[in-house]
Amino acid sequence: MKKMISLLMSFTLILSLFAPAASAKANKNQDAFKNRNLHVQIVLFDGFDLLDALAPYEVFAAAGMYSGGKVTVELVSAEGKRSVPSGLNGPSLKAEAVLDPNRSGIILVPGASGKPAGNSEDAIPNVLKGALQTRLPGMLKKSMDNKDVTVATVCGGSLLLAMGGMLKDRHAVTNQIGMTALKALGAIPVDARVVEDDPRLVTGGGVTSGLDVSLYLVERELGPQIANAVEQLFEYERRGTVWQADGIAPINF
Amino acid sequence: MKKMISLLMSFTLILSLFAPAASAKANKNQDAFKNRNLHVQIVLFDGFDLLDALAPYEVFAAAGMYSGGKVTVELVSAEGKRSVPSGLNGPSLKAEAVLDPNRSGIILVPGASGKPAGNSEDAIPNVLKGALQTRLPGMLKKSMDNKDVTVATVCGGSLLLAMGGMLKDRHAVTNQIGMTALKALGAIPVDARVVEDDPRLVTGGGVTSGLDVSLYLVERELGPQIANAVEQLFEYERRGTVWQADGIAPINF
Repeated sequence: MKKMISLLMSFTLILSLFAPAASAKANKNQDAFKNRNLHVQIVLFDGFDLLDALAPYEVFAAAGMYSGGKVTVELVSAEGKRSVPSGLNGPSLKAEAVLDPNRSGIILVPGASGKPAGNSEDAIPNVLKGALQTRLPGMLKKSMDNKDVTVATVCGGSLLLAMGGMLKDRHAVTNQIGMTALKALGAIPVDARVVEDDPRLVTGGGVTSGLDVSLYLVERELGPQIANAVEQLFEYERRGTVWQADGIAPINF
Repeated sequence: MKKMISLLMSFTLILSLFAPAASAKANKNQDAFKNRNLHVQIVLFDGFDLLDALAPYEVFAAAGMYSGGKVTVELVSAEGKRSVPSGLNGPSLKAEAVLDPNRSGIILVPGASGKPAGNSEDAIPNVLKGALQTRLPGMLKKSMDNKDVTVATVCGGSLLLAMGGMLKDRHAVTNQIGMTALKALGAIPVDARVVEDDPRLVTGGGVTSGLDVSLYLVERELGPQIANAVEQLFEYERRGTVWQADGIAPINF
């Protein structure tokens, strides 16, 4: 019996040695995220894809709700406050402000919705070309030069950057149907759902990957608990390993 | 050698017997879907959830694109043409027409976005209560009585129907956080991503299940090839078996 008690006591001692370290770790991580506020600008342009833009919008908005307002998200455009028509004669959304490349946080660029091939006015490459003829590419270049900004894309948003000459030698992904074009435009295409070239450039694959891009960024910026709460509310589980130029590279067979 | 040739010939004969049957089957199925046109009304109300409404919108719109216009989709409201604010101070969408319960096709009801619990003005149950004080529930009842209409819901859309007394003894699903309420309101809750109580009532679980509800309906109404094309474009694979009160019921352990 005595032996038993002393055994229990040593066990308690061992536990007490570990416990403070564990709780200190938890506190430290909490503190690291505590004073962080995240502002997200979602960029609209004529012909943008609704889901590319709004799935991340809603993920960030829900993260704001669960974090007591630590995340704010707004729809912006190169021209400022205006009604912006989505592609294929879809509904319009109102941009509330002008895109501000100097504001720290995340700037998310959706793709276009349109015909996946051909050369009609509503073919995706032509919709993107239209966006490149506005002030948008200049503003996005400025955003990419701002060390306090993470530029994120979904689907054709990567092509928009690549067509604007912003993805030269950068690892990126886009919708599978745009991967050849992405390579032709000088990027290094990577087959992954989400690609983080460096912490300030995160690209996503086709339409629904916007959920994964935004959930990853919520975890990175606010920690896994907020991301998990959003996943539960949305009944979605983030898909795929986020590719980074890190760790052991697989042998190319 | 002669034997070999005669063997080959019989094989060819057997093939030729099967081939017409197979191709007739393919043609017959094509024909069954050929003259089908599908109109989808997506219902907006103050405080609706953006993704609940727009993920299906975009799936049906893409199905329309891939089928050469066999699917049309519009945003509607009980009040007709108006700008409808989404929940939690989110962006507004413009309803283009008044909800028409007499028009055959699909009427899709999204949920509300708001606080998942509590009794604040922006708590989900209160947002839904607001919608029930409009002409919407009367119109939805009429829709459910129309034999040419399939009423589909996403997330809290099921609760909206249940609160309006429309799901008594009907199998249904909603967001996991609303399943107890769904039962209390007289429905038979089923844990599945999509539940088809009968072909005219299809309900979906939390937010992102709108993708699954709409992809299932596209397959049901236009066949698997169009649904598959949309899946590829969106880089999404439909999730879960659609629950129906059919086949062998599992033993309840």
